[in-house]
Amino acid sequence: MIRAAIVGANGYTGFELMKLIYGHPGLTLTSAASRSNAGSKISDLYPALGFAYGNMTFTEPDVDTIAKNADVVFTALPHAASAEIGGKFYDKGVKVIDLSADFRYTDIGLYENTYKVTHPRPDLNKEAVYGLCEINRDKIKKAAVIGNPGCYTTCSILPLYPLIKSGVIQDKGIIIDAASGITGAGRKADVAYNFCESDGNYKAYGVTTHRHATEIEEKLTFGDERISVSFTPHLLPVKRGILATVYANTASGATASDIDKAYSLYKDEKFAVATGEGVLPELKWVVQSNVCAFGYKLDAKNGRIIIVSAIDNLLKGASGQAVQNCNIMFGLPETDGLPVIGTHL
Amino acid sequence: MIRAAIVGANGYTGFELMKLIYGHPGLTLTSAASRSNAGSKISDLYPALGFAYGNMTFTEPDVDTIAKNADVVFTALPHAASAEIGGKFYDKGVKVIDLSADFRYTDIGLYENTYKVTHPRPDLNKEAVYGLCEINRDKIKKAAVIGNPGCYTTCSILPLYPLIKSGVIQDKGIIIDAASGITGAGRKADVAYNFCESDGNYKAYGVTTHRHATEIEEKLTFGDERISVSFTPHLLPVKRGILATVYANTASGATASDIDKAYSLYKDEKFAVATGEGVLPELKWVVQSNVCAFGYKLDAKNGRIIIVSAIDNLLKGASGQAVQNCNIMFGLPETDGLPVIGTHL
Amino acid sequence: MIRAAIVGANGYTGFELMKLIYGHPGLTLTSAASRSNAGSKISDLYPALGFAYGNMTFTEPDVDTIAKNADVVFTALPHAASAEIGGKFYDKGVKVIDLSADFRYTDIGLYENTYKVTHPRPDLNKEAVYGLCEINRDKIKKAAVIGNPGCYTTCSILPLYPLIKSGVIQDKGIIIDAASGITGAGRKADVAYNFCESDGNYKAYGVTTHRHATEIEEKLTFGDERISVSFTPHLLPVKRGILATVYANTASGATASDIDKAYSLYKDEKFAVATGEGVLPELKWVVQSNVCAFGYKLDAKNGRIIIVSAIDNLLKGASGQAVQNCNIMFGLPETDGLPVIGTHL
Amino acid sequence: MIRAAIVGANGYTGFELMKLIYGHPGLTLTSAASRSNAGSKISDLYPALGFAYGNMTFTEPDVDTIAKNADVVFTALPHAASAEIGGKFYDKGVKVIDLSADFRYTDIGLYENTYKVTHPRPDLNKEAVYGLCEINRDKIKKAAVIGNPGCYTTCSILPLYPLIKSGVIQDKGIIIDAASGITGAGRKADVAYNFCESDGNYKAYGVTTHRHATEIEEKLTFGDERISVSFTPHLLPVKRGILATVYANTASGATASDIDKAYSLYKDEKFAVATGEGVLPELKWVVQSNVCAFGYKLDAKNGRIIIVSAIDNLLKGASGQAVQNCNIMFGLPETDGLPVIGTHL
Repeated sequence: MIRAAIVGANGYTGFELMKLIYGHPGLTLTSAASRSNAGSKISDLYPALGFAYGNMTFTEPDVDTIAKNADVVFTALPHAASAEIGGKFYDKGVKVIDLSADFRYTDIGLYENTYKVTHPRPDLNKEAVYGLCEINRDKIKKAAVIGNPGCYTTCSILPLYPLIKSGVIQDKGIIIDAASGITGAGRKADVAYNFCESDGNYKAYGVTTHRHATEIEEKLTFGDERISVSFTPHLLPVKRGILATVYANTASGATASDIDKAYSLYKDEKFAVATGEGVLPELKWVVQSNVCAFGYKLDAKNGRIIIVSAIDNLLKGASGQAVQNCNIMFGLPETDGLPVIGTHL
Repeated sequence: MIRAAIVGANGYTGFELMKLIYGHPGLTLTSAASRSNAGSKISDLYPALGFAYGNMTFTEPDVDTIAKNADVVFTALPHAASAEIGGKFYDKGVKVIDLSADFRYTDIGLYENTYKVTHPRPDLNKEAVYGLCEINRDKIKKAAVIGNPGCYTTCSILPLYPLIKSGVIQDKGIIIDAASGITGAGRKADVAYNFCESDGNYKAYGVTTHRHATEIEEKLTFGDERISVSFTPHLLPVKRGILATVYANTASGATASDIDKAYSLYKDEKFAVATGEGVLPELKWVVQSNVCAFGYKLDAKNGRIIIVSAIDNLLKGASGQAVQNCNIMFGLPETDGLPVIGTHL
Repeated sequence: MIRAAIVGANGYTGFELMKLIYGHPGLTLTSAASRSNAGSKISDLYPALGFAYGNMTFTEPDVDTIAKNADVVFTALPHAASAEIGGKFYDKGVKVIDLSADFRYTDIGLYENTYKVTHPRPDLNKEAVYGLCEINRDKIKKAAVIGNPGCYTTCSILPLYPLIKSGVIQDKGIIIDAASGITGAGRKADVAYNFCESDGNYKAYGVTTHRHATEIEEKLTFGDERISVSFTPHLLPVKRGILATVYANTASGATASDIDKAYSLYKDEKFAVATGEGVLPELKWVVQSNVCAFGYKLDAKNGRIIIVSAIDNLLKGASGQAVQNCNIMFGLPETDGLPVIGTHL
Repeated sequence: MIRAAIVGANGYTGFELMKLIYGHPGLTLTSAASRSNAGSKISDLYPALGFAYGNMTFTEPDVDTIAKNADVVFTALPHAASAEIGGKFYDKGVKVIDLSADFRYTDIGLYENTYKVTHPRPDLNKEAVYGLCEINRDKIKKAAVIGNPGCYTTCSILPLYPLIKSGVIQDKGIIIDAASGITGAGRKADVAYNFCESDGNYKAYGVTTHRHATEIEEKLTFGDERISVSFTPHLLPVKRGILATVYANTASGATASDIDKAYSLYKDEKFAVATGEGVLPELKWVVQSNVCAFGYKLDAKNGRIIIVSAIDNLLKGASGQAVQNCNIMFGLPETDGLPVIGTHL
């Protein structure tokens, strides 16, 4: 059994990791650390976990103690704090899967500009692998540090990567209009996320300024100049899931069969599924699963393709992909412990 | 035009009062006071109000200033604070409609035991009228201070009062199993009320300890000894509305026609509607209206009546009834400014 | 009092019309016709209306009977059927406000292509006025037949019209990415709209094929050649409201002050509100009100403007605008009977 | 691998069974039969299942064909039809787990009175075991036919059984006030269950007439005379889960420790969890898990106990318990394939 620890276990990604690890045949949870909840029972915060973990408590995020009983640590702290403690685990030989943005960028300047912090471990950033499993699987196998991708970015990059790379769409003029469930905002006391303020509501936010835009732009740039996308996130009155509607200009003469050919990259993938022309995934197809599904429609009149891509933001968009990365790093079957079928209901 | 002021205008009952007053042909809003929001625009908190009130701001809760331009003040502060400031307005000749529990109890000891505070104005409490409009209309006409009833209590007392009073049900063994929308908890930052923690959830709370029980017990006692009810509130994943399912033992031989006869008390009422045997109101019949509707089913096998009663907790259960009280006090048509038709959708 | 009748009163737009008319100081409901519900009580279908209309029943859609007691008829039937019966009312001198698409298009061919029907009254179509109140007010005053605009179209045209007309944005390359509440699908038995299939879900539909696209294109064409927009509707898990996120290419050198100047067209409007740069309306600002509110963000990096526009699909997007048209046609105050403040909660 | 077939696979219990079987280490799905959907792909109805089952189709409910490849069949058809086809499988030596009410009652007369049908296989009913796992485990091990308990009944019986049996509560005067998610109504086209009619709503239904009452009464009768309960179901605006609030009169002198002692019956159970005094489960503790959790509060003033019990209606209340029964019948680990941790979010 691979011994897994979580630092920052009290948040929603921590909840999902604890749940996934409990059901995983090859992983066992050795520590669930949370500074703010240290000493209290996991079941006080998440009674549902109590039926599995009984009286287990959150611990202090003490690196020495945790590292002794861990082969891998999932770090889920705020930006900069996450890389700092993650780096200490790395220094002790523990593999690190970081769910913050700290190890996602190749260009540290872009990261620092985007997140307005100084990167605490530029040395480690060089070694870190961007954990988009279907694209970087070979590198992930050998990685010691993973920058686990963002939720909007996973949902956007998976469908766009093969199309831009193969040239069937243009990399100029891309618009990503996306909508996320409220778990994307994390577990925090804020009137704006109260049921009474959110139910029945829908809104755009972070228009032209959301930080996931630069991560998308870096990962989708194959030429010399970084591409520029318009990224508009919205907040849905649902708990989970992201649906991205992507508008791109097709290359001259590009057909559905060209698109499908580009998507054959994913033909053996369980968690990146191209559904084909005219089959547009809905949120409920993927919520509570680790699948990212995407389909498209050609808009010949306007020379565009319209792609609809769906994921569960807490699974393929966060903790599920983190476990998938862990499976790859430790040579476990890649789907172990990961739900293929969502809840639909 | 009657000049109305609100103290504690930033909460949800304040929002509803501002909305009702705007649409009321006989009332005009002269001040909306809120210590925590003084100086900021009403539309910053509630953009929907901005389309009506433009750049109007919240003011400090300064009694002297507010009283100069007010015939009536709606006080909606926490318990004890509300009676204290309400008392000052009374001292200046402004009529007071208090939405806290401060002026609801005849028995000050019961109030103090229930709310764990010392009543700041016992003198005034003697004069205050319990503002359950359909029951106390004549007293309300002449009142200077109104204790506006609680939400659960209005929903429970209206259907039970005529039945207990007329003796068709027993006053022993009553169970009130009720469910409320989340606006009942007010506008506050608390993870427990976050969309992600509330949507899809349902729970009991305050079992055997909820404070509305003593208010119900006092108002439904017609004999020497205060009656005792089991009151179990639940939290619904909806914004608004209360549905109470009430179990009572019928008097020996009591029939549906006895029940209906007792309910003829309300035959001319617009906002207390007995729907008859077998017609059980649903939440959507009344949400966003000022109507309290109740129907019943006789459970002959078990010697019980099962009553289902529904209201909008923020309207007939709070601000709507407050405006209804205001209409009665100032001799305005009782339905003025109050919605008869809810939203259904 | 203006005597109003409704044909097709059983649907959701019918419900809203009955509700608005009840609260309107200048209108009285003389008939609510519905073939499928004729003879049954309005309150059987909509108990909330029963508190206002008592035992009033739906009638057969008999033109002769209804016309005798009506100054205006609101027709809300399926396409083609609506114009046919509307035409008969017109022939009897009753003013017609039609909520279907039948009288919305100037170009009958475009209408017939879009809706795949033959227009039953091309003669009348010539006389009909497109009832977008803020744009066509003067024509509406004199109209006998109104084609009441669609919901997505009202939400899209109001913010785009002044910008295209004044040339601050280009009319080529416009993308409208919109999301609607489920009442937009009407009142029908269909598993796809069941709570269990819709709650927590979000999906795109009608991509590249939705019929409102041609209505938008016709109304926003000022040159010789009809413009072309990409229109992508989505289904939100909410009951009401539409939020449209619109992407357009700005004219070279266009600034926020140019945009604001174009929007000064609406400076005296109560129901078309430009909120300015960086102030992006949310659904809850307008739901249950007749207001269409829109703000924008300039995306200088990509040479675009991103507009967010919100309405209540059943009010400003249907029945509210219909009553607004009625007010204009009969010289009543334009805001009479129409909610300025939405429910927020 | 145990070969499992489903008859009536298109409904929501069928969906859950297909999902559970896919993730079960000891079961494999050999047929998913549905008369109405025969020949169409499972993924057409439930795209989420497509990521697991690919192009597998629903088959006709042909007993001969299905029986050849099945060790066990889950029958989920309407009452009477279910026992009829289930009986044919039994005749061919296939074990039957029936999710309808057909094999739940010992007293066939009570069944026939309750469901208004003639039992098609009274012979088999004698042999059938009531599949409430924690109570009847030993009988289930040897059973060939299981009557899988109802959802409300499982949620009600598990907490009441030990208390009545041990005499710490009285069996007279029990009230069960329960609320269910809308999946309880199944997958059907009915305006009443549309999102727009259900969201934000809450209502009682089947008051004094719901069929689960007689099932509860039979299973909780230990004396000569069948007990009588008041059972009031409500419909919650959530997809899944049942919360039952139960009122019972305590035996004279009964204390919390007496209650806890009675509940020690479940001390080793994973799926029936007594949470103790004052710890009242919420829906989100159990939704998407197979756990039934129940806690209680003593109401000394009124001589009552108030129990709150929660389950997922589709899992422990239907398909989860069916799989648990299957595990017991075939000697598989009882928790195999069954979720202990719900989704919370």
